[in-house]
Amino acid sequence: MNCIVFLIQCTDQKGLVSRISTFFYERGMNIIHCQQHTDVRKNLYFMRMELDLATLESSRRSLEDEFQKFAVGLDLKWSVHYSDNTQRVAILVSKTSHCLYDLLLRYQEREFKCEFPVIISNHPDLEHVADKFRIPFHCLPVKKAAKAVQEQELQELLDRYHIDLIVLARYMQILTAGIVEEYSERIINIHHAFLPAFQGANPYLKAYEKGVKMIGATAHYATADLDEGPIIGQDVERVSHEDSIEDLKQIGRDIERMVLARAVKAHLENRIIVDGNRTIVFS
Amino acid sequence: MNCIVFLIQCTDQKGLVSRISTFFYERGMNIIHCQQHTDVRKNLYFMRMELDLATLESSRRSLEDEFQKFAVGLDLKWSVHYSDNTQRVAILVSKTSHCLYDLLLRYQEREFKCEFPVIISNHPDLEHVADKFRIPFHCLPVKKAAKAVQEQELQELLDRYHIDLIVLARYMQILTAGIVEEYSERIINIHHAFLPAFQGANPYLKAYEKGVKMIGATAHYATADLDEGPIIGQDVERVSHEDSIEDLKQIGRDIERMVLARAVKAHLENRIIVDGNRTIVFS
Amino acid sequence: MNCIVFLIQCTDQKGLVSRISTFFYERGMNIIHCQQHTDVRKNLYFMRMELDLATLESSRRSLEDEFQKFAVGLDLKWSVHYSDNTQRVAILVSKTSHCLYDLLLRYQEREFKCEFPVIISNHPDLEHVADKFRIPFHCLPVKKAAKAVQEQELQELLDRYHIDLIVLARYMQILTAGIVEEYSERIINIHHAFLPAFQGANPYLKAYEKGVKMIGATAHYATADLDEGPIIGQDVERVSHEDSIEDLKQIGRDIERMVLARAVKAHLENRIIVDGNRTIVFS
Amino acid sequence: MNCIVFLIQCTDQKGLVSRISTFFYERGMNIIHCQQHTDVRKNLYFMRMELDLATLESSRRSLEDEFQKFAVGLDLKWSVHYSDNTQRVAILVSKTSHCLYDLLLRYQEREFKCEFPVIISNHPDLEHVADKFRIPFHCLPVKKAAKAVQEQELQELLDRYHIDLIVLARYMQILTAGIVEEYSERIINIHHAFLPAFQGANPYLKAYEKGVKMIGATAHYATADLDEGPIIGQDVERVSHEDSIEDLKQIGRDIERMVLARAVKAHLENRIIVDGNRTIVFS
Repeated sequence: MNCIVFLIQCTDQKGLVSRISTFFYERGMNIIHCQQHTDVRKNLYFMRMELDLATLESSRRSLEDEFQKFAVGLDLKWSVHYSDNTQRVAILVSKTSHCLYDLLLRYQEREFKCEFPVIISNHPDLEHVADKFRIPFHCLPVKKAAKAVQEQELQELLDRYHIDLIVLARYMQILTAGIVEEYSERIINIHHAFLPAFQGANPYLKAYEKGVKMIGATAHYATADLDEGPIIGQDVERVSHEDSIEDLKQIGRDIERMVLARAVKAHLENRIIVDGNRTIVFS
Repeated sequence: MNCIVFLIQCTDQKGLVSRISTFFYERGMNIIHCQQHTDVRKNLYFMRMELDLATLESSRRSLEDEFQKFAVGLDLKWSVHYSDNTQRVAILVSKTSHCLYDLLLRYQEREFKCEFPVIISNHPDLEHVADKFRIPFHCLPVKKAAKAVQEQELQELLDRYHIDLIVLARYMQILTAGIVEEYSERIINIHHAFLPAFQGANPYLKAYEKGVKMIGATAHYATADLDEGPIIGQDVERVSHEDSIEDLKQIGRDIERMVLARAVKAHLENRIIVDGNRTIVFS
Repeated sequence: MNCIVFLIQCTDQKGLVSRISTFFYERGMNIIHCQQHTDVRKNLYFMRMELDLATLESSRRSLEDEFQKFAVGLDLKWSVHYSDNTQRVAILVSKTSHCLYDLLLRYQEREFKCEFPVIISNHPDLEHVADKFRIPFHCLPVKKAAKAVQEQELQELLDRYHIDLIVLARYMQILTAGIVEEYSERIINIHHAFLPAFQGANPYLKAYEKGVKMIGATAHYATADLDEGPIIGQDVERVSHEDSIEDLKQIGRDIERMVLARAVKAHLENRIIVDGNRTIVFS
Repeated sequence: MNCIVFLIQCTDQKGLVSRISTFFYERGMNIIHCQQHTDVRKNLYFMRMELDLATLESSRRSLEDEFQKFAVGLDLKWSVHYSDNTQRVAILVSKTSHCLYDLLLRYQEREFKCEFPVIISNHPDLEHVADKFRIPFHCLPVKKAAKAVQEQELQELLDRYHIDLIVLARYMQILTAGIVEEYSERIINIHHAFLPAFQGANPYLKAYEKGVKMIGATAHYATADLDEGPIIGQDVERVSHEDSIEDLKQIGRDIERMVLARAVKAHLENRIIVDGNRTIVFS
């Protein structure tokens, strides 16, 4: 079933559910899901409203215009998403394949509603994976003298493929401020540690040396501050003194791909609202 | 903050959120939480509506009367709960203390909004726990010849203490059909296994012999069919060949008390709607 | 590092660690790991002894002959495994690809020390996966009139490819008693439920209808009694009333592939000893 | 069954299992468990040897003397522990009762083999808990001008009660260097966060503000650097945007008491060897 999702945030006030749901009811639209969250500390209200697209009787444009007029009165900040506008997702990778494979296989299993029109890497190693799934692969090696050139090429690829969402599936390269800004809240990174512990490089080595008894992974939106963007999801697994750094990496791969997949799915289904450094992830 | 909770179920139909939320909005009442679930297979709709009691401007009676009139039109099945009507909970135990202690300690930590006016047992062993927390303790030993008498006494105690909810905190005795019926959906039992595996007695022994690698516990509403009522919550823990039956019991105790506590809390906060053999547990 | 693994079981008796470890010490062999388990109820002793193959100074044949003489005195039941004898694993599948992919990708990541020389199916659907990984694929469709023929062909393939281990990676067909017997403790099946709950077909439907709050998967050695063989590993994931049967299947896929992978890995590393209906799985 | 536990560490070398196990075999002692770990990176070997105390034919003193002579040859660092020497554990608390209750209840359930001869606090609040379990309670309030006095009193109490192990069960006060040193590897602290994330005060607030999706707790040996000692155990629980700071604290309480209980149990059963900043925790 195709649906329309409205993501809404505003100052908390009386009558929001009634007034917003009535807006749609008056237009004959059927609510499939309606989820809310109130941040009591900040007096903020968040809503995810999922409607049956088949019950939309006007044009999308006119729905949006009318909602905008309605929104002004309540001072709503909102966005709207149509599930038949399939999102176009660029996967960026370096040399590690497990997250890439995982995304492609879930796509094949129809767990994700999106397209993967392009895979981009700073290394040629994973071209064979792209080939297996018949997806165009672009290698943009980073040469020290010409980092600006690589970034320009990356920007062009994102434009050419009309990319809506960038997934950093173990892409070991920092994106430029320009791309991070343009794709604000539309770049998902997987960090191979339980943030905020073990930021930066080599987290499994650090975890080993610290002697932690659990290792984890964190999916978050990328911001200018590396490993600091709003967290979307996390998971961990128990480890012991018997696990070598290699074991941690191997256990970590399973956590990383699960955590990344769930975050990408939540984003594609428009379940996430970002509020400062925190996320509301409707289940 | 005190609140009113409406639990509602009906056939799914257009406009439910709008019409129900507007009912409260028109009366100046503030919605704190509004959660919904649609059972697509059965075309059923479930709602939990939590309202700020302080915004109720009429009497409770007149609110209920008006809602009843409103409900007829939509063919709603509903119940209403006021958080300042503190629920009175009878804990029934036999000889094992861990669930009993856990409930009392959580009460002390203010995790539960309820009263525990009485502890009832078919054995005298746990009277000292009741004493520690200064709660009346009644021992109703079961004598073969006089099971009917014990049941009659139990019924009288439940009446005398105006009990709203019965918690079987490892009470190793089957309740009579009469009590089960009278307290329908108001008796919570903890079964020391991951139902539907290992029904009946000695589940840890059975789990050991089967060689399972995880053991669990299940909280459910008691029905006439033992270990068959609607499941409220479950949890498990990993075990290995190294764990003896004693170890399983010990690990199990921690699972049991967590699962029971979460189920009791969900019930006390009016988060559960029973639909046939399944439960909707709003988080 | 290549290693020799001895798996040993016997009646518990004094001096076992000393006598067995001294056997290897006297021959100049280096113990890498030595793990034990005592089943107090049955008075049985189990040992996994992992030795550095590089420190073997005699022939394997003579090591085995000498150990056999030694074993008689203690009445040991034992087997020996050399890690450079790469095990040959046949994967049997039907139409579902997630476990198949998972095994092949872990192989590619070098998580498994084995070969996958052949993939066998009763349906043609997954030939493209085998092609992607350049592994011979044989389709043995089951025709009602000729089930015996299919089984004969399967037996021939297992022989032709010198198969050591059969992995039923969602193979929805019962193996014949002959194969089950020949490959006793060398057939690993993944059942898509938390056994012993929900045996047989459609476990996710059954789980949904029962309203359980967790779903799971079980890897076990196949025996003549379907879904009854010794359990190797299990895992579960929390679910809620919001999850449809489709959701359960999707969540289940992740559990299935993790549980199957861990079981195959434990088998390939010779970490499992079967004792009746229970397994000892050394970590 | 009473037992003797030897904890041993040394440089890895050939023949250790054989030579050590033979030492005990020659003296007619029965090995109950023998667990080992090799740290390949550092070339270190760790062993936990559990023997049946009933099979000791000499005096303990002479066993220890003989083992010491034997140990010199292999350059072993070792300690020995007799399970009939019941350890005396002081619980230090401040105002929060959940960890204290949990320890006392597990003691009552016979999960711990130890004595709790004294509870010490810098606040009077939890005296009633000590009274319930008839354990002497000492309140040592910390007065700014007289911190040295309080420390002196604490030291005297530890001496007077012949304390073997100190458990900081949410004791919100830093111990002096003198006590930390004297009780090196014999002070267990529970930190209410997943270390190394959220060190220091108010970890739940920090976790909330960071927007993490899991919260945890860490049991570790106390060292002079607060929150930096060797980690014994950790666990986490999933949380969401719906959880307030109060909710995090409540969820955290359950994690804290489980993690602390497991760490105390492992210590009391002599399952832990500390190696620098890491622990080996034999299961």
